[in-house]
Amino acid sequence: MRLDQVTDEVLEDVIPDDDERDRLRDVFENVRRRAREAIDERGIDADVELVGSAARDTWISGDRDIDVFLLLPDDLPRDDLEETGLDVGKQVFPDGVVEYAEHPYVKGHDRGYDIDLVPCYDVESATEAKTAVDRTPFHNRYVSERLEDTDDARLLKSFTKGIGVYGSELRTRGFSGYLCELLVLHYGGFEEAIEAASDWSPQVTIDIEDHGTKEFDDPLVVVDPTDPERNVAAVLSLDNFARFVHACRRLSAEPRKSLFFESNPGTVSREELEKYIEDRQTTVVCVTFESPDVVEDQLYPQLRKTESSLVDEVERRGFEVLRSDVAADDRGLILLEFNIAEQSRVERHLGPPVHVRQHAESFRSKYADADVVGPYIDDGRYVVERQRDHPTVASFVESDDFLDIGMGKHVEEKIHEGYDVYVDDDCTRLVEEFGSVFATHISPEVVE
Amino acid sequence: MRLDQVTDEVLEDVIPDDDERDRLRDVFENVRRRAREAIDERGIDADVELVGSAARDTWISGDRDIDVFLLLPDDLPRDDLEETGLDVGKQVFPDGVVEYAEHPYVKGHDRGYDIDLVPCYDVESATEAKTAVDRTPFHNRYVSERLEDTDDARLLKSFTKGIGVYGSELRTRGFSGYLCELLVLHYGGFEEAIEAASDWSPQVTIDIEDHGTKEFDDPLVVVDPTDPERNVAAVLSLDNFARFVHACRRLSAEPRKSLFFESNPGTVSREELEKYIEDRQTTVVCVTFESPDVVEDQLYPQLRKTESSLVDEVERRGFEVLRSDVAADDRGLILLEFNIAEQSRVERHLGPPVHVRQHAESFRSKYADADVVGPYIDDGRYVVERQRDHPTVASFVESDDFLDIGMGKHVEEKIHEGYDVYVDDDCTRLVEEFGSVFATHISPEVVE
Repeated sequence: MRLDQVTDEVLEDVIPDDDERDRLRDVFENVRRRAREAIDERGIDADVELVGSAARDTWISGDRDIDVFLLLPDDLPRDDLEETGLDVGKQVFPDGVVEYAEHPYVKGHDRGYDIDLVPCYDVESATEAKTAVDRTPFHNRYVSERLEDTDDARLLKSFTKGIGVYGSELRTRGFSGYLCELLVLHYGGFEEAIEAASDWSPQVTIDIEDHGTKEFDDPLVVVDPTDPERNVAAVLSLDNFARFVHACRRLSAEPRKSLFFESNPGTVSREELEKYIEDRQTTVVCVTFESPDVVEDQLYPQLRKTESSLVDEVERRGFEVLRSDVAADDRGLILLEFNIAEQSRVERHLGPPVHVRQHAESFRSKYADADVVGPYIDDGRYVVERQRDHPTVASFVESDDFLDIGMGKHVEEKIHEGYDVYVDDDCTRLVEEFGSVFATHISPEVVE
Repeated sequence: MRLDQVTDEVLEDVIPDDDERDRLRDVFENVRRRAREAIDERGIDADVELVGSAARDTWISGDRDIDVFLLLPDDLPRDDLEETGLDVGKQVFPDGVVEYAEHPYVKGHDRGYDIDLVPCYDVESATEAKTAVDRTPFHNRYVSERLEDTDDARLLKSFTKGIGVYGSELRTRGFSGYLCELLVLHYGGFEEAIEAASDWSPQVTIDIEDHGTKEFDDPLVVVDPTDPERNVAAVLSLDNFARFVHACRRLSAEPRKSLFFESNPGTVSREELEKYIEDRQTTVVCVTFESPDVVEDQLYPQLRKTESSLVDEVERRGFEVLRSDVAADDRGLILLEFNIAEQSRVERHLGPPVHVRQHAESFRSKYADADVVGPYIDDGRYVVERQRDHPTVASFVESDDFLDIGMGKHVEEKIHEGYDVYVDDDCTRLVEEFGSVFATHISPEVVE
């Protein structure tokens, strides 16, 4: 199939029909009316605005998320903003629940839709944003006024979803909807964006309004057209940047509909995991602990920091990590796969060159009577072979030395309360809970 | 004990008494007389000269080696030099055996002494040497005319012997007798040399005649007083340099007679070797093969080249070598001790960064249908995990891949004819043959 045939078919699936548009409009109008009432009752000067892909006609058919913003006066104290937001939210959605991002807001339900009712400051310009969400209405207006081919934005969103790099949460570190829209706007269409990205080499800088004022070291820099100091692609990781470049090339080379629709990683059985380890003769070590009660945007950076400290420390100790992953539900998980199971009981400890007299003599006298082999001389330096602290990774992770590595704050607290270590076949006990993590670990391939 | 008390005691052992001096003189005069006769019978214009430590009164009591040189006209063709040398040698020592260095010579015996009768060219100056031994008479004359305190030279020779760094053969890569004498001459005595060497830092340059004309990259450069282009310490290895510096400091710190007398490394029992491996949980691998029929000065560099290629290759393959050794008698031995026994069946193979389009695409397509895990993306690059060729060192050494490493020429020929591989407890079968090698391997410490 040619790419245009593929995209035509994809569009049939992702463009909402009139019924869906009417239903969404109804749901929003209902929220707006009730929010308006609640605001008026309180005598506040505020606007109610539909934002996000629903407002910009770039949502994917079947999406059931609607973002409605309450734009409140920018001289309102922060506490009042939050209180008003929650009051109005609870009046609109008596059964709504309070969610937390930078500040709390109410999430309600109506006819199958999830509606986030979010208070923000009605500031003069995006650069004057006082909270993270104050820029959203500006993004909304910027794109609404300029983006003509909203279907191409739908294609790019579907494509990033299909290849697993959609989402600007810190768990995913991918492409936001707004970023997809700006790329289509900048390159003049979906196919043009795909073609351009196939040749991306970090750092790529896109500055539609030609007004950027800051240096970034992210692989992709898309200067926010509504705020010259902000990179819209700041959270995009180098690996997701590369996955996107790779997938763009593959889409051009072999256009397929499947690249536009997410495939579930599925799960693995205990037997499959056992066979994987047995075939590869690697050593798999899992560490689990109770998840701290923080939002994912806090949790994932902490998990990754802990993972990366652990990888650095065990590699420093001579255990080569093939791959590692993190995940969290009620429990946090760090999964590591190693090239070797065990090292000898001794480790070489390199001393100074013998000719550096003062250092050399203190090294020599420190080890002269110690329970080591050496000091002997190798390559002009003193060397001793001393007892290795941990011949296995499990021995390290089960010891207090593990607690000394750098960890994310809340993760550290939980790990200090207690944690479990699973090695090789023990890990199969985690398959029910973390099946999709193991499935992804076992098959880490990029799209073909 | 103070150092001077120690050296006094050492000197009692190493200075030859009058009987020994007379006996050596007798033996030499007898050789000279018979050599003179043989030369005169042939009507050759040649001198007979006693050289080496016997000539310079720097030999250690008990040494039974005498070097006698035949100085032949320097216009003699090389073949005639060799022929005359052997003819004269065989007439002097009808039971003598022919030995080979750069050229052949005869070794004879008389009243417990080994006498090397070596032909050389009687050149104008050491710089005009045509063979490696032509410089020897110049060294002899230089030292004989200048070295007053020959006992201090005896002390330094004994000390380098005692700490295992005496000998300029390529097997040892240590200090020659001539080098010891020049150091005493330069520093003005044994204690002065010890004190100076305690602060040596490579590169150390000593140029007694202040006439050196060449750059060297050896740790110790002692410009030959009889040849400005030659470094007398050229064969001294960095490790023996460092061992000497270390031992000089230890001698000053704790003067002891034991440092002047070689201790036999002894041997190990099978049980001791087994216990060593068991305690350390290391992996010991030995490779043996028939020794090629070449002199040690050829054999040892070849053994070390083979050892070093092997170490590099297995370390490149992820097997960390703790220590390695070589040895040879009828069979050559390479002994390696490893930190790990085995690696997983897979190895990470890093591809290019995804953004380097042409390389990236050919890497990707090469592995797209291969039996590997991946390509996946890590740190912006393609990575695959492919089958590891050799999960153990034994698997590598037993395969033809071993035969592809760089080896010394004659060693390579013998290894290609056949070799044996011993792992861990198997190595105990080599204890009878290579006991002292294992003994040194198990206790590699420098003097305390």
